Amino acid sequence: MFDKKDTIKFLSSGVASETDLVAVKEKIDAVAKEGRVLNIKFGLDPSAPDIHLGHTVALRKLRQMQNLGHKVIIIIGDFTGMIGDPTGKSKTRNQLSKKQVEENAKTYLDQIFKVIDRSKTEVRMNSEWYDKMDFRDVINLSAKATVARILERDDFAKRFKNGTPISLHEFFYPLMQAYDSVVVAADLEFGGTDQTFNILMGRNIQRDYGMAPQVPVFIPLLEGIDGVEKMSKSLGNYIGINEPAEVIYEKVMKIPDNLIIKYYTLTTDVHPDDIAKIQKRLESGENPRDIKMELAKEITTLYHSVAAAEKAEEIFKTAYQKQQAPENTPKIPYKLDANTDALNALITSLMSTGKYASRGFIRRLIQQGAVSVDGTKIDLSNVPEMGSGTIVKVGKAGFFEIASQELKKKVELSEPQNEFNVFQGKTR
Amino acid sequence: MFDKKDTIKFLSSGVASETDLVAVKEKIDAVAKEGRVLNIKFGLDPSAPDIHLGHTVALRKLRQMQNLGHKVIIIIGDFTGMIGDPTGKSKTRNQLSKKQVEENAKTYLDQIFKVIDRSKTEVRMNSEWYDKMDFRDVINLSAKATVARILERDDFAKRFKNGTPISLHEFFYPLMQAYDSVVVAADLEFGGTDQTFNILMGRNIQRDYGMAPQVPVFIPLLEGIDGVEKMSKSLGNYIGINEPAEVIYEKVMKIPDNLIIKYYTLTTDVHPDDIAKIQKRLESGENPRDIKMELAKEITTLYHSVAAAEKAEEIFKTAYQKQQAPENTPKIPYKLDANTDALNALITSLMSTGKYASRGFIRRLIQQGAVSVDGTKIDLSNVPEMGSGTIVKVGKAGFFEIASQELKKKVELSEPQNEFNVFQGKTR
Repeated sequence: MFDKKDTIKFLSSGVASETDLVAVKEKIDAVAKEGRVLNIKFGLDPSAPDIHLGHTVALRKLRQMQNLGHKVIIIIGDFTGMIGDPTGKSKTRNQLSKKQVEENAKTYLDQIFKVIDRSKTEVRMNSEWYDKMDFRDVINLSAKATVARILERDDFAKRFKNGTPISLHEFFYPLMQAYDSVVVAADLEFGGTDQTFNILMGRNIQRDYGMAPQVPVFIPLLEGIDGVEKMSKSLGNYIGINEPAEVIYEKVMKIPDNLIIKYYTLTTDVHPDDIAKIQKRLESGENPRDIKMELAKEITTLYHSVAAAEKAEEIFKTAYQKQQAPENTPKIPYKLDANTDALNALITSLMSTGKYASRGFIRRLIQQGAVSVDGTKIDLSNVPEMGSGTIVKVGKAGFFEIASQELKKKVELSEPQNEFNVFQGKTR
Repeated sequence: MFDKKDTIKFLSSGVASETDLVAVKEKIDAVAKEGRVLNIKFGLDPSAPDIHLGHTVALRKLRQMQNLGHKVIIIIGDFTGMIGDPTGKSKTRNQLSKKQVEENAKTYLDQIFKVIDRSKTEVRMNSEWYDKMDFRDVINLSAKATVARILERDDFAKRFKNGTPISLHEFFYPLMQAYDSVVVAADLEFGGTDQTFNILMGRNIQRDYGMAPQVPVFIPLLEGIDGVEKMSKSLGNYIGINEPAEVIYEKVMKIPDNLIIKYYTLTTDVHPDDIAKIQKRLESGENPRDIKMELAKEITTLYHSVAAAEKAEEIFKTAYQKQQAPENTPKIPYKLDANTDALNALITSLMSTGKYASRGFIRRLIQQGAVSVDGTKIDLSNVPEMGSGTIVKVGKAGFFEIASQELKKKVELSEPQNEFNVFQGKTR
């Protein structure tokens, strides 16, 4: 039916330590014995914004399960979205129409299907069953849970202790999430450890309905590119899957070295055995930067093409070289006009440093591939025109920055230029 | 529209001290200003058994309101009855069909309409609105209440504190009772003080629905004929409204004197002003037994005819007189046969006591009305035939008990006779 060994391998790797792997293995055995594949439930609230790499950790694991033949069921919690905030306290949570909810869900799903395989995914809107429930059904469902049990949930417990009001209807949400597991007969439910309570309630309710209880697979949190905080848009430490290839590549290159293996495990589909090999390369002293470049290319390729990832790598190298230039890089004049060409303009510039014996010497250096402009080697037939800030590297340690008269003018327009720089810094 | 003065008078009398009479008066003023009558809500659970006088306290007050022109709305909580026990823990609380619930309600209402006026009563089954509610409606309703607030209810608070499970669906019941008040736009809700929480929740929910909040009228508990415990069938201290006239009469005569005014207030429709007069008679030293007999006749008449009440009074007097006979009442022989008539048989009997000078003297005593048989005065033309145990009273203190030879036989069958007495003692 399915590859039990690899299923276990992929579910043992890249999941949070709270996951009970013994129970997971037992469930895999039981399902295999029944001659079927795993029903894997994953619930989504379609109010979430653009998806970033942190969101893909669960999706990636689901994709791996799909690759192994298992069934993924995405549950969209549209029912609550259509209710809005019944207390009327939250102005932002307005009641959405069925059409609006469906449109939101579509936008969201389009992003999700960049990770998981649309053709192997069952998408269910939970309004499908909650729309049909009457008061009697609600009472029968509510009878499955005790007040004390629901109040044990962390957030409720805190609010209750602090005297912060909990509106009775809020108690339905864990119950509904739990009942969703009954409807789709989930074997596994994927979720963060913050979902522990709801997932375990799903187990109880499944038992009440005479069903084998699902096993939770807890998805770990991914640190952002700062290597400290959880990846989040508001903290600015995220990598959005819709970002351009060169941005994704460059952001991955920013993660600290100690997260390379974690990023491999949580954000790529690389086989656990291969990740083990990468770990060995790191341990044997290979330059982490080179391995990180492989990782960046791997991740970029997932959301763009191989070609785009390669181009992103080139762009990164250029920028990287710029970064390598020391802070006190000497500025040199540069003048390109009708009386000269780019090659001669560059030679004139470099001669002005007084470091090179003759124009012929510089010409030979270029010919030998010892000169690069913004990280790209040049040759005599291919010398670019340069502008203010262009870094010229000669040999291994000769860094110069172009500062032409034309550019002085531009520098005088300092304010908008700076604003633009600040903005770029932010989005990076 | 309606008699405000009398409405206030009847609502100020015979209600529990917890009733906020200022709020009641304000509500009466507000409703009068709107040119309408009071909407008075009273909720019933049709699982209750035969109705006794304790149950009628609320009904009697409702009847008085009907007599003043107000509208009474009885709400039958049939919806929960049809749900049964969703936890499946209670074997007795089975799910009832709509037909069964309606039949139960009918039996119950037939009793209730012995007190309140059927033609002036609106009966609503709450399934009428709860059957129509879907999950969304339930969530919107639940949002009106907080968990902490519902947990304040006495029984919930205790169970929560003791760790006794409270199933979530139980939280709906106070909420439903509260919402019923919205549906019928109640101005007043009648109920016991044990309903305080639910009635006050009704106020909150009415406010949430933009409605003037109802005012609770708390109905006091009635002590049973033992004068100590709350009237209840299981304690045997009750007066059932379906009991025969003589039983009702006799049971009322058993209440302690200090409850006469309370029984007048809570179980009759006598005007508060008239009850004040009765109180004065008691305070001026009038024999409480005589006033209690008026009360017994009043109550008996409510559930039977005036004639039946009068007959019950006669029966009581007989029994009472028997009770008055001292324990060592002398037994006298009595013989009625073909050779004599009832008058002469009685005279012969009394002559055997040796206390009376002549048959002519006894005849004159009868003629003067100084002789009674089992509590009923006799005259010469109307002397009953007597049997064993008949009490003959001559003058103020002359008690004799008939003990004929024929009756000696019957007395020998002592066991069944005693059993019968014991049984009678119980039902009294």
